[in-house]
Amino acid sequence: MRLSQRVLTVPESPIRKLTPLADKAKKTGRRIYHLNIGQPDLPTPEGFLKGVKNFRGEVLSYCPSPGLPELLQVFSDYYRQREIPLAPEELLVTNGGSEALLFSFMAVCDPGDEMLVPEPFYTSYYLIARALGIKLCPVPTFVEDGFHLPAWGEFERRITPRTRALLVTNPGNPTGTVYTREEMNMLGELAKKFNLFLIADEVYREFVYEGEHKSFLEYSTLWDRILLVDSISKRFSACGARIGSLACKNPIIRKQLHKLAETRLAVAMMEQMGAIALAETPSDYFQRANLEYKRRRDITVAGLQSIPGVYCRRPEGAFYILARLPVVDAEDFAAWLLQDFYLDGATVMLAPANGFYLTPGKGKDEVRIAYVLKEEDLVDALAILKEGLRVYNNRSTASSG
Amino acid sequence: MRLSQRVLTVPESPIRKLTPLADKAKKTGRRIYHLNIGQPDLPTPEGFLKGVKNFRGEVLSYCPSPGLPELLQVFSDYYRQREIPLAPEELLVTNGGSEALLFSFMAVCDPGDEMLVPEPFYTSYYLIARALGIKLCPVPTFVEDGFHLPAWGEFERRITPRTRALLVTNPGNPTGTVYTREEMNMLGELAKKFNLFLIADEVYREFVYEGEHKSFLEYSTLWDRILLVDSISKRFSACGARIGSLACKNPIIRKQLHKLAETRLAVAMMEQMGAIALAETPSDYFQRANLEYKRRRDITVAGLQSIPGVYCRRPEGAFYILARLPVVDAEDFAAWLLQDFYLDGATVMLAPANGFYLTPGKGKDEVRIAYVLKEEDLVDALAILKEGLRVYNNRSTASSG
Repeated sequence: MRLSQRVLTVPESPIRKLTPLADKAKKTGRRIYHLNIGQPDLPTPEGFLKGVKNFRGEVLSYCPSPGLPELLQVFSDYYRQREIPLAPEELLVTNGGSEALLFSFMAVCDPGDEMLVPEPFYTSYYLIARALGIKLCPVPTFVEDGFHLPAWGEFERRITPRTRALLVTNPGNPTGTVYTREEMNMLGELAKKFNLFLIADEVYREFVYEGEHKSFLEYSTLWDRILLVDSISKRFSACGARIGSLACKNPIIRKQLHKLAETRLAVAMMEQMGAIALAETPSDYFQRANLEYKRRRDITVAGLQSIPGVYCRRPEGAFYILARLPVVDAEDFAAWLLQDFYLDGATVMLAPANGFYLTPGKGKDEVRIAYVLKEEDLVDALAILKEGLRVYNNRSTASSG
Repeated sequence: MRLSQRVLTVPESPIRKLTPLADKAKKTGRRIYHLNIGQPDLPTPEGFLKGVKNFRGEVLSYCPSPGLPELLQVFSDYYRQREIPLAPEELLVTNGGSEALLFSFMAVCDPGDEMLVPEPFYTSYYLIARALGIKLCPVPTFVEDGFHLPAWGEFERRITPRTRALLVTNPGNPTGTVYTREEMNMLGELAKKFNLFLIADEVYREFVYEGEHKSFLEYSTLWDRILLVDSISKRFSACGARIGSLACKNPIIRKQLHKLAETRLAVAMMEQMGAIALAETPSDYFQRANLEYKRRRDITVAGLQSIPGVYCRRPEGAFYILARLPVVDAEDFAAWLLQDFYLDGATVMLAPANGFYLTPGKGKDEVRIAYVLKEEDLVDALAILKEGLRVYNNRSTASSG
């Protein structure tokens, strides 16, 4: 008996890899500031639980495979308010954004097919692609450029006869980068010229701090080739609901996505009931959340830039910053913080950035910081990070001297 | 742009294929008895909704990838009461039985690998395998044998160097067949001799009407190779919750399953809270449900056997009967019932059995009947079926004469 190569080669999630060390530290009574995971801390709108309680019915039966019609309507209304025209029948409710990714990848790629993706990128892309036998071809971006896109040629020279799609996250995870109109134009032109699908992951849409968010679906000339991945997890602080969506205006693609939805029968009923009721959330909810995160971003960037040797640009969106640290091996440093360092009984947990890169050796001195903590906690966490770096680097000098 | 072969070749679900015709009939005010879908009609225990309301917390955050520890404990307790030893850490909570199948298939098969499966079988097996590039190799069983297994040789001669697993459903869907101890012994010996995994789908465990259900996990000599697929959908009449589980006693396999669970982050929180509370369901719940379905089975079998030309054996479990009808094309007959036939304003919806066979031409004159209706409705539905067959066959004679 041997297990499949597709699963043996799936790496462990880098965001959770250090969790055993964190659990151990917690057992010794230490406080850990979690800067490692993109779990928003703002309260979920209370409408969600009310919606769940709206369920009447003796039997908890299957929902329709594409989702409850009321929820598809709620999603359609949400998009219309943002000038993204999507009819309910152009949408599918999915088990979180993750399943929307799974269905998109399955629909456009056979085993051995390729997708181009700007690097660094969200780790689940690699995990899912690997499980499906799909090759991700990274297009490098750099901290010095704020992870904005390289020129056309960097994409073009990576396109092969097996390239099927461009995969982009906007606003970006782990980078927080929001693409300019020019960058979006370029991606659209690339997709058209090389006849590629465009899988656009826009789950951080509500978290843009400079200018306005543009969706790829605002380009009507790209409608036939776009698969739009979305989720309520981040925008409503409701990661635990696992309610995502997959939108597509091309009926030929949609027909295939519906077949994939049938293979898993339905999405959970209670969570769909809750998500329907989120439509009643006061209209200033997003605005308030956006202001809150913007403040946190500014605190975090200022804090990081005040630490000697740390480098980062100010990201335009999401709630992540990818920063370069003055260390050789950020994973070793992150592990050390959990095992050997604390300030007033507290330490910080970071996500080493190497897990967001596919190119060997890249991102070794970088970490992703998720600013999903209250302001005073962020200030504390940044102070711990600063002092931790000082002690870690002195320690290294001492032990190597 | 071309879509993937893996998705283009996924067929539509045969259980839902005729749904547009049914929707049309309902719009004209006709009543439809749904014998086509295995959606139990018994009330979901009310503990479920109470459990959902137990959620306290401001933020609906991610559950742990393997599931909430309390739910894993509840599942472990459930199995222990049935003499199936499974520790909480040997279990994963999944998005319905469907995801447990997806993870199992992914873990043991690369694209091009093969699994043997007694035919007819649950359609989702084929849909999921196709999407993953896995080949299902059907081992034929027959209505005359009550769909019990053929001899060893029929399995052995289908094993190739690419065969990775045996995939079995016990009790069976669409057959209702419960394997004897001897059949289970044979499958276990086959798995050992040819070094195969054994994927055992036991979601109908509580619905055995003759003797006692045996789980494959009762064979400790098979522990290293079993992946046990399960779900609360059928046993608690809670299909809409999408709560399943995947059990495995082999830690090497389990490590890989955990990585797959991480790719989709978590299962929905509300539904897990509900499922935890199902542990409080009175202990006679299963017994009462079992008696109810047994009565329905007997009514359905008697009703079917009283119709001239219909052939079926009495199945030992689940809530399905696969019957042979006196028609050439059961799909045509099922469509005709929805479009052109009604008795006192009502008709029946059947699942044509060809969708449960992979071998071309097989099952054309068979249908699957799910006895998930109240007794009086079952009696009505069977009377409509009887009269429908008479009219349909006279019509055929008339139009061909």
